[in-house]
Amino acid sequence: QSDPASQRLTWNKPPKSVLVIKKIRDASLLQPFKELCIFLTEVKNMIVYVEKKVLEDPAISDENFGAITKKFCVFREDLDDISNRVDFIICLGGDGTLLYASSLFQESVPPVMAFHLGSLGFLTPFKFDTYQSQVTQIIEGNAAIVLRSRLKVRVLKETWEKKARVDEKGLILTNGDVESSRKAMQYQVLNEVVVDRGPSSYLSNVDLFLDGHLITTVQGDGVIVSTPTGSTAYAVAAGASMIHPNVPAIMITPICPHSLSFRPIVVPAGVELKIMLSRDARNTAWVSFDGRKRQEICHGDSITITTSCFPLPSICFRDPVNDWFESLAECLHWNVRKKQNYLSSEDEEF
Amino acid sequence: QSDPASQRLTWNKPPKSVLVIKKIRDASLLQPFKELCIFLTEVKNMIVYVEKKVLEDPAISDENFGAITKKFCVFREDLDDISNRVDFIICLGGDGTLLYASSLFQESVPPVMAFHLGSLGFLTPFKFDTYQSQVTQIIEGNAAIVLRSRLKVRVLKETWEKKARVDEKGLILTNGDVESSRKAMQYQVLNEVVVDRGPSSYLSNVDLFLDGHLITTVQGDGVIVSTPTGSTAYAVAAGASMIHPNVPAIMITPICPHSLSFRPIVVPAGVELKIMLSRDARNTAWVSFDGRKRQEICHGDSITITTSCFPLPSICFRDPVNDWFESLAECLHWNVRKKQNYLSSEDEEF
Amino acid sequence: QSDPASQRLTWNKPPKSVLVIKKIRDASLLQPFKELCIFLTEVKNMIVYVEKKVLEDPAISDENFGAITKKFCVFREDLDDISNRVDFIICLGGDGTLLYASSLFQESVPPVMAFHLGSLGFLTPFKFDTYQSQVTQIIEGNAAIVLRSRLKVRVLKETWEKKARVDEKGLILTNGDVESSRKAMQYQVLNEVVVDRGPSSYLSNVDLFLDGHLITTVQGDGVIVSTPTGSTAYAVAAGASMIHPNVPAIMITPICPHSLSFRPIVVPAGVELKIMLSRDARNTAWVSFDGRKRQEICHGDSITITTSCFPLPSICFRDPVNDWFESLAECLHWNVRKKQNYLSSEDEEF
Amino acid sequence: QSDPASQRLTWNKPPKSVLVIKKIRDASLLQPFKELCIFLTEVKNMIVYVEKKVLEDPAISDENFGAITKKFCVFREDLDDISNRVDFIICLGGDGTLLYASSLFQESVPPVMAFHLGSLGFLTPFKFDTYQSQVTQIIEGNAAIVLRSRLKVRVLKETWEKKARVDEKGLILTNGDVESSRKAMQYQVLNEVVVDRGPSSYLSNVDLFLDGHLITTVQGDGVIVSTPTGSTAYAVAAGASMIHPNVPAIMITPICPHSLSFRPIVVPAGVELKIMLSRDARNTAWVSFDGRKRQEICHGDSITITTSCFPLPSICFRDPVNDWFESLAECLHWNVRKKQNYLSSEDEEF
Repeated sequence: QSDPASQRLTWNKPPKSVLVIKKIRDASLLQPFKELCIFLTEVKNMIVYVEKKVLEDPAISDENFGAITKKFCVFREDLDDISNRVDFIICLGGDGTLLYASSLFQESVPPVMAFHLGSLGFLTPFKFDTYQSQVTQIIEGNAAIVLRSRLKVRVLKETWEKKARVDEKGLILTNGDVESSRKAMQYQVLNEVVVDRGPSSYLSNVDLFLDGHLITTVQGDGVIVSTPTGSTAYAVAAGASMIHPNVPAIMITPICPHSLSFRPIVVPAGVELKIMLSRDARNTAWVSFDGRKRQEICHGDSITITTSCFPLPSICFRDPVNDWFESLAECLHWNVRKKQNYLSSEDEEF
Repeated sequence: QSDPASQRLTWNKPPKSVLVIKKIRDASLLQPFKELCIFLTEVKNMIVYVEKKVLEDPAISDENFGAITKKFCVFREDLDDISNRVDFIICLGGDGTLLYASSLFQESVPPVMAFHLGSLGFLTPFKFDTYQSQVTQIIEGNAAIVLRSRLKVRVLKETWEKKARVDEKGLILTNGDVESSRKAMQYQVLNEVVVDRGPSSYLSNVDLFLDGHLITTVQGDGVIVSTPTGSTAYAVAAGASMIHPNVPAIMITPICPHSLSFRPIVVPAGVELKIMLSRDARNTAWVSFDGRKRQEICHGDSITITTSCFPLPSICFRDPVNDWFESLAECLHWNVRKKQNYLSSEDEEF
Repeated sequence: QSDPASQRLTWNKPPKSVLVIKKIRDASLLQPFKELCIFLTEVKNMIVYVEKKVLEDPAISDENFGAITKKFCVFREDLDDISNRVDFIICLGGDGTLLYASSLFQESVPPVMAFHLGSLGFLTPFKFDTYQSQVTQIIEGNAAIVLRSRLKVRVLKETWEKKARVDEKGLILTNGDVESSRKAMQYQVLNEVVVDRGPSSYLSNVDLFLDGHLITTVQGDGVIVSTPTGSTAYAVAAGASMIHPNVPAIMITPICPHSLSFRPIVVPAGVELKIMLSRDARNTAWVSFDGRKRQEICHGDSITITTSCFPLPSICFRDPVNDWFESLAECLHWNVRKKQNYLSSEDEEF
Repeated sequence: QSDPASQRLTWNKPPKSVLVIKKIRDASLLQPFKELCIFLTEVKNMIVYVEKKVLEDPAISDENFGAITKKFCVFREDLDDISNRVDFIICLGGDGTLLYASSLFQESVPPVMAFHLGSLGFLTPFKFDTYQSQVTQIIEGNAAIVLRSRLKVRVLKETWEKKARVDEKGLILTNGDVESSRKAMQYQVLNEVVVDRGPSSYLSNVDLFLDGHLITTVQGDGVIVSTPTGSTAYAVAAGASMIHPNVPAIMITPICPHSLSFRPIVVPAGVELKIMLSRDARNTAWVSFDGRKRQEICHGDSITITTSCFPLPSICFRDPVNDWFESLAECLHWNVRKKQNYLSSEDEEF
């Protein structure tokens, strides 16, 4: 095995373009965002990509910054393709900015440098106060990276439509047959796919297949299929162990399972998982991807999950091991303790 | 149901004698101990009971204090009976001092006021810096108490002895019969009875009876039978829920059980529990009482546990509810959180 | 403490009226229901109360049974008051029938005898095949009961309405003031009150008060406040320990809490709990009562929970202890194990 | 990633020698053992290796079998080196036989085929009744294998000795200097390394280092460092998630940790772990390797753990995925459920 701490950022040629992602509607980020953009444009001569809606914030336009924005490459989500045009990404905000960055790239993702402005996040290791030297280090290729695996999720929906048949005179024949068509969607997720009971008060009841074999039925509030990165997000709240992002694995965690013995399991990254409503499920289920694109899953629909070929290269503040343990302590208070002895023996205590 | 916060300390006549318990071999406690004893003796005119071994500490004897100690009633553990002679108890040290105080009283226990010198403990709610006013309040009967239930534990040991028969000439006949005799011991525990595998690397295998019926077999590292007070001690480390000391209940918590579905259970205070080695247990088990008096349990021995008729009246710093939640936060970091949102929806985050 | 197994059913005068509750739309229950009703009416000369919608099932009317139904006292939920008119209740179906029976009685509840037709439930200990002798035993007062505590829940909703002011000519004046009014509802729950995030993908954020003091903030999927009876329902799926119904306590269990240290807690039956949205909650919460009457909770609304004065007397098949452990094994596979030794020592294994 | 189900057994040349491991002192295994050995020797013309102590069992020698045993290669544990002389291994007994087989090979391990005679084990997938066809399949190279990673553990013990100095006349000089020497031992473990408090009733207190950095201090009953194979053994009893053996990872699981937030973690296979007593530990710790070679760890001693270069190739009954899920269900009753609905809504239930 290679040392997981040894993966490093390497540039084939010096980076020239950078996508800056800013959480919108957060006034505290405006000043750092402007400073950073000016630094990248004026000092580092980078081409800065910014999303249109970020610049539409009325609070952003002041005279000085207005001139700078003219140099930006502005794009719109879902309309403009920026794949292969960005050398790296800088995120300003919470862990959500990285989930959002991930969603913008369905295939290869540029390396991401993520700043936390408030408190340290799992995905945002950099402090902003020394951003200039930090960004310079990255541009010079002086950084460790962790390749965060993503999940490729395909949702196949069976849709039934009553095709009205029309006769030669244009009259509608009501006995039109029901025809089914299939609709496929694909998502790349960085944290997790969640299947739950949605607004229903019944238990969800879904079948879980691994490489084509039914391995179990999940009866409970739902199930989380997560990456190691996602193991410290919703999965940990549902009782999962925490998995370092360098472990090539997929975690399956039930949410409030009806069975006492339904412990979370970890399977190798190479497998194919499939989730479908159980035949005897009384209600539908709902699926979401990194907390987004929530949709209903009905009988016959399927959710297929494999490890994506396109991981997200996340730039480390120190290295993959130290960054991870620091975030466990900061974000989850992992084993933060007060020393105490609950067992006492007679000779020493008394 | 009566309001659990309403139990209050009441004196039939003004308290005159106080037992002061000090953790031994802890230099940091010497000065507070002396101050407290002088205050009780000189200012409050109380009769102070102190254990002999506390005064035997060479560090304790200075000229001034030596004179005071002459006024003390000195007793020796296991030799002198102090039951019914002490009006209340003051503990200096950690939670262990209260466990020790409990062990001194096999029947009725005087009210206990416990000071933590370092950090707050579950059983030691008082801060020492304002001890004078606090002790005065107690003497004036101005305090809430929580009656901490204890467990009465009877250990019945089957002992086999080879009785050598001797003939009329004094010759020993080697085919002496094996005779069994029974030895009973009784303990009062404040936290828990622990039955575990001791130094063995085999699983322990014990049967658990409730009111005479076998309810389950524990296969694992062991089992903890605890009071609500003990639910926040070893039991919580083994996965138990935390129970407020005012709930009349007994908690049964397996330690690393072999079965995934062996969740802890809580039964009413009125029942009788019995633990014995399973018939097919390959090794013995070990039992301890509040972490003390550790002993081996063999085939045929039994441990019988009921709620004691003699609870320990523990004096509250504020009241039973506030004291408990404060200790959960301080000692277990219970739900001490950093606010964060792991689920994000597209419209609000971006 | 009294022995929890000693509570027994006692009739001041022989029971004359019985309410029979049948799960509707379950064809397998029709024949047992008819048999039971004929037995109660013809053999035992009891007055049988049946809900109107049960008799409206088309499958129920055959010629023979039609004649019997004429003797029934028929009532409608929410319209007819049957409190104080029924001596005891018989339930046919799953645990849901008992939750339903509970909801019919906001005050005193008659003793309930519950049959499971399929597999044993937590609340349905009786097998139907010997129903005649079993019912006879009950009528003769020959049975143990367990008093299952219920929770009294008050929901106080702040509602704001724009009172349109109308001038003397009937023209609507748009600057009507917003007026708030308060609406209070009350529920008796046998299992639990659940507060969760509903269809939102944000964490819920609610404050939990005990006797007027804020004790913690729940950040996660939600929180369950349950009776001991409810500890083996949704709460156990969320990680709670199981509590025997005879323990006078209330259990508080977080659902997928964001904090790793947020273990469930058990508080005395006498306390008053209150749940409100946290001031900084970004979305509303939803509350339901034994899985029913689901409704939204907004800023300013409050949910107040105390132990009800009206427990549900549940008739035991054997006794409170044996029935409970049998249901743990049957319904939760509690500690159902296969014996195995995961630790091996060299001398014995080899 | 390669498909974990695709690893297959391949022979460079037909296998000629087989080591047969039998659990000793288990009478039920004698007949199968004899049958198997006769089959291997007579029918398959294999050279059979057997341990001396297996043949020393008096129950084993009957006239017919005695002749066969003369053809065996007999060896003694710890004395005779059989590495590189055995083409594959057959185990008869429980999971312990595989742990034992593992301990015999400190370097490369031949493929292992393990039969369960009683109930299915995690490590013993084959049923004995069709052993002839099964063994034939293996000899023909017709089988899937799972490479079970092992841990290489080095224990470095600091030993202090009072070197007595002797003068020219042979008189012992008592003021000999204390000299320390270091003793290193190495183990290969298949399941786990356990560090615990041994017979002490104090919490153990050990520091855990990862790649040279202190990552946390374990305060509790101990800590388990396990392979994915070991995740379903002791670790699962201590609360770990279950990890498929094909995941290249190491699991760290605290045993009854004092801190509520000390959840198990999973780190990449490539790291180096080190465990030492904490500076302020009041008592020593004990370490064992797959439940064997239990020994004390004192201040200054260290336990270094890395993924071994020598995994154990375990022959599958079907394939790595199906075998694993079958053993989860059989051995741990993983999510073996009874369908039930604890949440009910008013319109459907009634």
